[in-house]
Amino acid sequence: MKLIKSQLGSHPLKPDQQKRLDALLQKMEVEAGHFLGYPCTREFDYSSLYPFLAYPMNNVGDPFIEGNYHLNSHQFEREVIQFFAKLTRAEEDEIWGYVTNGGTEGNMYGIYLAREIYPEGLVYYSEATHYSVPKILRMVHARNIMIKSQDNGEMDYQDLRETIRIHRDVPAIIFANIGTTMTGAVDNLVTIKQIFDEFAIQNFYIHADAALSGMILPFVDQPQAFDFADGIDSISISGHKMIGSPIPSGIALAKKTHVSRIARAVEYVSTFDTTVTGSRNAITPLFLWYAIHTKGRAGFRQIVKHCLDTADYAIKSFKQVGIDAWRNPNSITVVFPRCAEEVLKKWQIALQQDIAHIIAMPHVQKQQIDTLIADIVAAQKQPRQMGLHNR
Amino acid sequence: MKLIKSQLGSHPLKPDQQKRLDALLQKMEVEAGHFLGYPCTREFDYSSLYPFLAYPMNNVGDPFIEGNYHLNSHQFEREVIQFFAKLTRAEEDEIWGYVTNGGTEGNMYGIYLAREIYPEGLVYYSEATHYSVPKILRMVHARNIMIKSQDNGEMDYQDLRETIRIHRDVPAIIFANIGTTMTGAVDNLVTIKQIFDEFAIQNFYIHADAALSGMILPFVDQPQAFDFADGIDSISISGHKMIGSPIPSGIALAKKTHVSRIARAVEYVSTFDTTVTGSRNAITPLFLWYAIHTKGRAGFRQIVKHCLDTADYAIKSFKQVGIDAWRNPNSITVVFPRCAEEVLKKWQIALQQDIAHIIAMPHVQKQQIDTLIADIVAAQKQPRQMGLHNR
Repeated sequence: MKLIKSQLGSHPLKPDQQKRLDALLQKMEVEAGHFLGYPCTREFDYSSLYPFLAYPMNNVGDPFIEGNYHLNSHQFEREVIQFFAKLTRAEEDEIWGYVTNGGTEGNMYGIYLAREIYPEGLVYYSEATHYSVPKILRMVHARNIMIKSQDNGEMDYQDLRETIRIHRDVPAIIFANIGTTMTGAVDNLVTIKQIFDEFAIQNFYIHADAALSGMILPFVDQPQAFDFADGIDSISISGHKMIGSPIPSGIALAKKTHVSRIARAVEYVSTFDTTVTGSRNAITPLFLWYAIHTKGRAGFRQIVKHCLDTADYAIKSFKQVGIDAWRNPNSITVVFPRCAEEVLKKWQIALQQDIAHIIAMPHVQKQQIDTLIADIVAAQKQPRQMGLHNR
Repeated sequence: MKLIKSQLGSHPLKPDQQKRLDALLQKMEVEAGHFLGYPCTREFDYSSLYPFLAYPMNNVGDPFIEGNYHLNSHQFEREVIQFFAKLTRAEEDEIWGYVTNGGTEGNMYGIYLAREIYPEGLVYYSEATHYSVPKILRMVHARNIMIKSQDNGEMDYQDLRETIRIHRDVPAIIFANIGTTMTGAVDNLVTIKQIFDEFAIQNFYIHADAALSGMILPFVDQPQAFDFADGIDSISISGHKMIGSPIPSGIALAKKTHVSRIARAVEYVSTFDTTVTGSRNAITPLFLWYAIHTKGRAGFRQIVKHCLDTADYAIKSFKQVGIDAWRNPNSITVVFPRCAEEVLKKWQIALQQDIAHIIAMPHVQKQQIDTLIADIVAAQKQPRQMGLHNR
């Protein structure tokens, strides 16, 4: 029986309301042309999947257990999870996971698991960690200590060693940046595990925040240690960053043995609810599934190489005008000194203290980098105005 | 500059992959014709907004403070929040809020706020509360006590009184069901506040989980107490339930004075991040904005009346075949005794112990109710098979 949707209680938008939507769409097109500062690609086209948006789909609950809510894409979600399990070199059937609403949810999941396993554990994370992490730590009441960072954004292992030395009585939970937000620095898991060895710490947990670099490192020739084969317990990778999605999404993966601790039988949806969120959208798993099958490992490898080339082009171009730009190994984040406010604003560039960055995502074009650098140089030549940061 | 998307690393889907997507879409159409058991309407059409899905939009951070990420719909999100602030009778400028990924996130937000304000407080919630709530309480380490329920799903106020009596030394945090999941029962805020009075409890916090009924009670003639004028501190309302959305969403509202406690200056996105999630999709605020403007208060009132009429039709029809069905006041959830497994599965009906329910959402047709009841009666007449619940 094909149902005809009723128009009960509905009327069209007023012309001025439609105009406001049209203006927003036009603004998006303009702003997307100056989009260099955030790690989200605009290279995607999921229009062939829009027909699914006609249904109240919902991937509520565990994607690996079917419930009574049949309007879901769990089957495709499971394949997405399996793709990422292989990408992060998990042993077959060792891993559970689900598609999240973004990197933060995957990090919350990892920290929550770690705290359940080691309630008295201490979470160590570097000062270069994303601002959402202290928020999560506070939310879940996890004991934690912030560790100093090195200049490149990597954790200061000397500080970690000294800190762990005086807390050998409690389990260690490492929140590892697999690509920091500002400089794309990767915390060295080999060194961190050596420190555990040094102090005979056997109760530890490693969560990897691989929001962006989780989709870079599997596709380069000499990746840093970051995955399950390298000893992590859980990982969060974003779906809307390197892969691209108009709706933020992410992948949370964790060892099954950890997840079973928080599984909870729930009769209501005839499923075990092991996710953070409950109701979950069914469309982003389809977006990810589509991207995986239209690109594949070979396609992602090509894309990552292209991004690294663009990053190197940017560094060379900055240096040609005397601006000291740099990047970390296997990172597509190009770091340079803070520049004029109006330039930052035009190109949607994030700042942290005295450094700025552009991120050489797939959509970033050499011509845009040229224009950005020209803008920076032009702003330098203008007489200084009394601005906020001149006070 | 109009950017042309590159096809780097991409190829089309293989025919068998496309076939699988086509089959999923066809399955959705079939299943949507038997969709009586969950509180999500299928009456929506947001196809005119799909062009926004071509951009990497993101409503990261506080919708009331503009950051450097310009590809957002914050302006429309703020208007959605203001609509709901009025609907829940908040005083002007008293309220902060944002569009969430669903009801659970809004409940997590409310509980988190309450725990920050009263770290030693006890959360009281009835045993009819949604299964996600104990999960959240555990996640945020909030002390809590489950209170007995009455048969209709409302909190047992005698049990609450006795429990509060012996915990007068700590603040009371009420997690109020404004419509329980199984029976649509509304916890009585007037009675609860009388109990606070009785024991001179002045430090208390009331969070309202109004996932479904938050969009019913504002549109009936004699609503139960549920909103800011009735004394709540925060509320969570779902966007994908009564309003409808192909992507789960919700509205979290809280008193500004509470929210300021967890605000945190964040230089990275030049914004104060007071949300739970960080990255947030920009499209569901547009869906909600569109629904508000194409329906309005008058439209929603018509729709709610239609749903209540459908619910009454269902009760009458059940009774005509000797099945004892009922509903709570102002609820569109029709409760009836557990029936045969195959019928539950066909119509995607949720169970809890010995009761089942259908929810008379806007898309539910009388003809479907007739067929469901015929299915139940037919199954009763069949000889009993050795099924799971006969053992």
